[in-house]
Amino acid sequence: MTRAAIGVGMVGYAFMGRAHSQAWRNVGRFFDVPAEPRLAAICGRDEAATQAAADRLGWAAAELDWRRLVERDDVDIVDVCTPGDTHAAIAVAALEAGKHVLCEKPLANTLDEAEAMAAAAAAAPAARTMVAFNYRRVPAVALIRSLVAEGRLGEIRHVRARYLQDWPLDPEFPLLWRFDREQAGTGAIGDLASHIVDLAQHLAGRPIAEVTALTETFIRERPLPSGDGRGPVTVDDAALFLARLEGGAVATFEVSRLAPGHRNGLWIELNGSRGSVTFDLERLNEIELYEAGAGAPAEGFRRTLVTEPEHPYAGAWWPPGHILGWEHTFVHEVRDLLDAIGSGAPAEPDFASGLQVQRVLDAVVRSARTRRWETTAPDGAQPREGSVQ
Amino acid sequence: MTRAAIGVGMVGYAFMGRAHSQAWRNVGRFFDVPAEPRLAAICGRDEAATQAAADRLGWAAAELDWRRLVERDDVDIVDVCTPGDTHAAIAVAALEAGKHVLCEKPLANTLDEAEAMAAAAAAAPAARTMVAFNYRRVPAVALIRSLVAEGRLGEIRHVRARYLQDWPLDPEFPLLWRFDREQAGTGAIGDLASHIVDLAQHLAGRPIAEVTALTETFIRERPLPSGDGRGPVTVDDAALFLARLEGGAVATFEVSRLAPGHRNGLWIELNGSRGSVTFDLERLNEIELYEAGAGAPAEGFRRTLVTEPEHPYAGAWWPPGHILGWEHTFVHEVRDLLDAIGSGAPAEPDFASGLQVQRVLDAVVRSARTRRWETTAPDGAQPREGSVQ
Amino acid sequence: MTRAAIGVGMVGYAFMGRAHSQAWRNVGRFFDVPAEPRLAAICGRDEAATQAAADRLGWAAAELDWRRLVERDDVDIVDVCTPGDTHAAIAVAALEAGKHVLCEKPLANTLDEAEAMAAAAAAAPAARTMVAFNYRRVPAVALIRSLVAEGRLGEIRHVRARYLQDWPLDPEFPLLWRFDREQAGTGAIGDLASHIVDLAQHLAGRPIAEVTALTETFIRERPLPSGDGRGPVTVDDAALFLARLEGGAVATFEVSRLAPGHRNGLWIELNGSRGSVTFDLERLNEIELYEAGAGAPAEGFRRTLVTEPEHPYAGAWWPPGHILGWEHTFVHEVRDLLDAIGSGAPAEPDFASGLQVQRVLDAVVRSARTRRWETTAPDGAQPREGSVQ
Amino acid sequence: MTRAAIGVGMVGYAFMGRAHSQAWRNVGRFFDVPAEPRLAAICGRDEAATQAAADRLGWAAAELDWRRLVERDDVDIVDVCTPGDTHAAIAVAALEAGKHVLCEKPLANTLDEAEAMAAAAAAAPAARTMVAFNYRRVPAVALIRSLVAEGRLGEIRHVRARYLQDWPLDPEFPLLWRFDREQAGTGAIGDLASHIVDLAQHLAGRPIAEVTALTETFIRERPLPSGDGRGPVTVDDAALFLARLEGGAVATFEVSRLAPGHRNGLWIELNGSRGSVTFDLERLNEIELYEAGAGAPAEGFRRTLVTEPEHPYAGAWWPPGHILGWEHTFVHEVRDLLDAIGSGAPAEPDFASGLQVQRVLDAVVRSARTRRWETTAPDGAQPREGSVQ
Repeated sequence: MTRAAIGVGMVGYAFMGRAHSQAWRNVGRFFDVPAEPRLAAICGRDEAATQAAADRLGWAAAELDWRRLVERDDVDIVDVCTPGDTHAAIAVAALEAGKHVLCEKPLANTLDEAEAMAAAAAAAPAARTMVAFNYRRVPAVALIRSLVAEGRLGEIRHVRARYLQDWPLDPEFPLLWRFDREQAGTGAIGDLASHIVDLAQHLAGRPIAEVTALTETFIRERPLPSGDGRGPVTVDDAALFLARLEGGAVATFEVSRLAPGHRNGLWIELNGSRGSVTFDLERLNEIELYEAGAGAPAEGFRRTLVTEPEHPYAGAWWPPGHILGWEHTFVHEVRDLLDAIGSGAPAEPDFASGLQVQRVLDAVVRSARTRRWETTAPDGAQPREGSVQ
Repeated sequence: MTRAAIGVGMVGYAFMGRAHSQAWRNVGRFFDVPAEPRLAAICGRDEAATQAAADRLGWAAAELDWRRLVERDDVDIVDVCTPGDTHAAIAVAALEAGKHVLCEKPLANTLDEAEAMAAAAAAAPAARTMVAFNYRRVPAVALIRSLVAEGRLGEIRHVRARYLQDWPLDPEFPLLWRFDREQAGTGAIGDLASHIVDLAQHLAGRPIAEVTALTETFIRERPLPSGDGRGPVTVDDAALFLARLEGGAVATFEVSRLAPGHRNGLWIELNGSRGSVTFDLERLNEIELYEAGAGAPAEGFRRTLVTEPEHPYAGAWWPPGHILGWEHTFVHEVRDLLDAIGSGAPAEPDFASGLQVQRVLDAVVRSARTRRWETTAPDGAQPREGSVQ
Repeated sequence: MTRAAIGVGMVGYAFMGRAHSQAWRNVGRFFDVPAEPRLAAICGRDEAATQAAADRLGWAAAELDWRRLVERDDVDIVDVCTPGDTHAAIAVAALEAGKHVLCEKPLANTLDEAEAMAAAAAAAPAARTMVAFNYRRVPAVALIRSLVAEGRLGEIRHVRARYLQDWPLDPEFPLLWRFDREQAGTGAIGDLASHIVDLAQHLAGRPIAEVTALTETFIRERPLPSGDGRGPVTVDDAALFLARLEGGAVATFEVSRLAPGHRNGLWIELNGSRGSVTFDLERLNEIELYEAGAGAPAEGFRRTLVTEPEHPYAGAWWPPGHILGWEHTFVHEVRDLLDAIGSGAPAEPDFASGLQVQRVLDAVVRSARTRRWETTAPDGAQPREGSVQ
Repeated sequence: MTRAAIGVGMVGYAFMGRAHSQAWRNVGRFFDVPAEPRLAAICGRDEAATQAAADRLGWAAAELDWRRLVERDDVDIVDVCTPGDTHAAIAVAALEAGKHVLCEKPLANTLDEAEAMAAAAAAAPAARTMVAFNYRRVPAVALIRSLVAEGRLGEIRHVRARYLQDWPLDPEFPLLWRFDREQAGTGAIGDLASHIVDLAQHLAGRPIAEVTALTETFIRERPLPSGDGRGPVTVDDAALFLARLEGGAVATFEVSRLAPGHRNGLWIELNGSRGSVTFDLERLNEIELYEAGAGAPAEGFRRTLVTEPEHPYAGAWWPPGHILGWEHTFVHEVRDLLDAIGSGAPAEPDFASGLQVQRVLDAVVRSARTRRWETTAPDGAQPREGSVQ
């Protein structure tokens, strides 16, 4: 292969680090990317663990300080896979060092941090930024986006989305950092709602203008990981919100970590003036599409396996009916980032998009506290009056 | 048959009248009711049409004034199948005349009327009243109620319910009375939300305490039935609301008449501390039940066909696997009313229950206007403050 | 109502008798039949039980000898709901008495009896005969038939059908008459295979030409109903067969009474040169239809709820999305019989059709014994040679 | 990493070659294999194409003659991904050279070749052989195998399996080598039936003893790839067969390339004396399990997402609910082969198992020609007589 190489440095090597590594290693095997990623260095705090991760995941070097990784000459792209409270510092430094940045979601734990990151991105126009909302890269989701964009559903009126999980259902599940507001910012909101807010806006093609929300913490204390007694859960287990999108569509959102039987239950439906479509992450190779008036006298929701050569991303893989898995979304993600770097076109969703999602999450948190509708507008502009009724 | 007879008089003979007639005619063929219903008289305003309905639907006599029907000696039960704006007058008169009353949902178009009806019921303790929330009588729904009551799902934390239809999707569908606030009170709220509010409260076993809502009218004018131009739609096409139930569960609700592909899409899910369950009216013979910890290493949602002899109502019909239809809910409904009349026990849901649903709907309408959380409490008590976040 | 009346006499009052009674009582409420059925007399052997059934099911008189029922002047239609070993005698007598005959399936226990019945029908051209293959009258099935007839699936190449149940899964389930060859003729073959053979031929529009089969009895003895020990099961628990249809389609069939979890699992799929369709009796309001080339880039199986006004039978009932149950098939069946009587057109499937199904079942039984392909042709004509391979 | 390395040489680089390469490259990233595979050399006939494949797929060297690849010192495992007519020569040579062999399915085009391969394997006891029936390595399939082995379904009575595709539905699809008996041996039989025969026997834990079959070629000629007219299709488009397994279970099998809407429709169900289970390759992360008597009063088929840490293979990948794709089966396959090589235990399915599948396919082909039941026994022993009926 005579393709140019491009150096990648990754910070973090847990769940997301493993998934991103798999993507960087494999993307060039399946896609004609403009430059072949070189896994230059991985960064962690524990020397032995970081070196072991480098070996296992295929990185050429191990760093113990992200500042050094950011400065490496052989690193062109910094991939941020750490918890949210460190995103801003790493990403801003990387942008200032002239690197491209891929950052895990949510963009940051606070709106201030997210704004700083978006500002740093704006100040570095030669750098491509991308927030890792990987579910945009499910072929089925990308197909839905194209169907909506073509007008196959007409004007979008309803969006309903939920992301339900059940991993900490057992009240004896320990009080990890994910249950601590200091470290995690929020609970299901940042972890789960960020995904469906991004998807809803992306698929409907419109931003959310305002929300009304409630949050709940059902299990209010959990055993300390140390085993010494119990501590308080200071984040939300669940969040529910209604929203109005620019242009008039209305939406319901629900996220919970305590929905038994839902392992990874991201589900979304859109209803337009001419049709409807649904997507379920646990069956991520499928969509169900309804087009009003099509197919009489046997109208109905049509289950499509999104594995055809003409479907987004799918042609690079296997023949029709040979399904992809969750991890492939990351391959598609880094493919798109490499393409953007190669072409100079903006990557999507970039930090500005990530900031917009953050504004929605912030409005959700505020609304749960104020018990009022809250706008997502940066200047706190008053939301418009309600409609009929 | 030596069973006693009990006379029924029905007001209205359209969609609901046809369904109720089928129930009155058939209940004694399948259930050992304490008294055999006699279809004494049906009431309408048009003489020829009413007589034709009497013949077609099997009623012994036709009346043109509901006051006369209410006074008939051979009528013990008055069955109110008219539009909502006439419920109160008929039901109150029937109660005052000492009759039992079955009333279609929603109980009334306004909260005042519903309160008057509940008061009349309270003042007639010998009369049984029932609101026709027939979906409680789906065997699958009744099974869910018993599973929840037995604690199979643990403490209920989440309810999510929606009722989606698409019959007036075409903007050229005419401006029927259902789109007029004067006659219909509300749109999807009274027609659809009343059902899922009742189901949610019934299945969770807890009333809704407060709501935040939005409503929308997407198609703001429609052709007049006369063909002479267009007129305004003055009710909601859709309503979305969040709720808190007494005891701490949270809920999302959504109703719409403009959800393409959903012909009769009532769907509800409950998540408890130990399990989850779902129901879909378009597959009304089924439930999907998840019980945490059951069946390892093959946990999952279990699809049950609710047609076993030990399932509610099902034993009276056919062998397992021989499914029932929508209309059977009415047979079960009148069976339960006849049983209550026979035993003197309260019927459920009675007018007091119907009033409570009405309070929720009223809070939804208010919240959509005020853009604030609204309580369902009769005295307008302030809702409690929000929780964490 | 000024409709003419037509007298019905029914022999048998068990499961099928209950279902037929419901149909006769209700058909005139929903369909504009040319004559209103009058439930003249029901016939059984036990006086008290027969009278109780008459009362419960709505029959005007009770008879204890089917010969008397057949001779009654007020009986125009004889409805045979008895076990298979008595079908021939009753039906032939009824035809000789000039009555129309509706006969439960399978037409008879033996091919000889079936031939005698078809001959009697041919000798009584003024009488309408119908075999109660009620699943033809599921609206979804009727819709499939019309789609195939219109060529929407192209040339039919594959049929696969199964009918699985599990009611006698417990080896302690008693040795009812259904397990005895003398009384029942066969086991799953007559009870279950008869239905799917009829459906397959009806939907494909072609008769089965030849079969190769195996049968099995997994539970070879069961407790005697008397409680005194155990006796042998002398019929099949399961039957599997391959078939070729006239015109070249190929088919697989499977029936079993020992398929755990399948309460009433009749399922059929057809593949044509242009599309495919499936039907599942446990979700009898639905079909899944695939049309090649339709809907790109989102092709797939389309789930249709067969409850639209334009769907077969459905318009007589309720609005779209309000599903029907198993029992409605019998209402449609007697509607179609009454229409045929009224118009003088042949009823379908008539005794000649029932005889053809019987020939297929007989070939299945023979093939299971001879271990060879067996023809369904009446003269034992040799089947043609195999194709490629 | 201090793991030992083991050299792999692969023959062929088309569809299967791409999938195997992905497996060899990735297995060590996710599984603790005893030796790290080194992608030593790939072999093809066209120099440029082979070198391009080596680059793209990550192989260190390119060979143009499989005999040279087999002789390479740095090759310990020969991976045969060529069409079936070359399997025997390559595999036998590799075994004689002391290499381990992974061979794509079906083992060979003829029974003679398969026997030669099994004999060569038996003569090389130090070599591990494996036939690439990769669907055994779907976690859901492996879970089913363990459930059956534990007796959760009781004694297996019924197996029904089908593998339906539709890629050459268009009669203008060209006459590839897959439609030519000389090169492909058979059509759907070798390509599709081989998979479900292996799965059926593996899951039931019993070999197939005898079959009765029919085959069909619906589209009897197709355009030549050259564009110069049309040529005959000399293999089967579809095959249907019934089978008896050792121990008494009965089975139906169906494969077709002309089943519209089925892109990769491998589906299998087992019914035992205590339960049932189904699997669908298009939703390969799921099983549906029914256990009789479990969960009353809400028995039913339970959909399990086979992504839990305790599920076969799944723990090496991602958290629960993060689904795997089709390609992961190959990673599991080479993991198991590497484990077998490391431990010296037999690999499964080895060439002896592959030969047994071949015997079944051969009996299918014979039965379609003779129109009789054919045994799978190597000595042509007569099948036993039929059972009851």
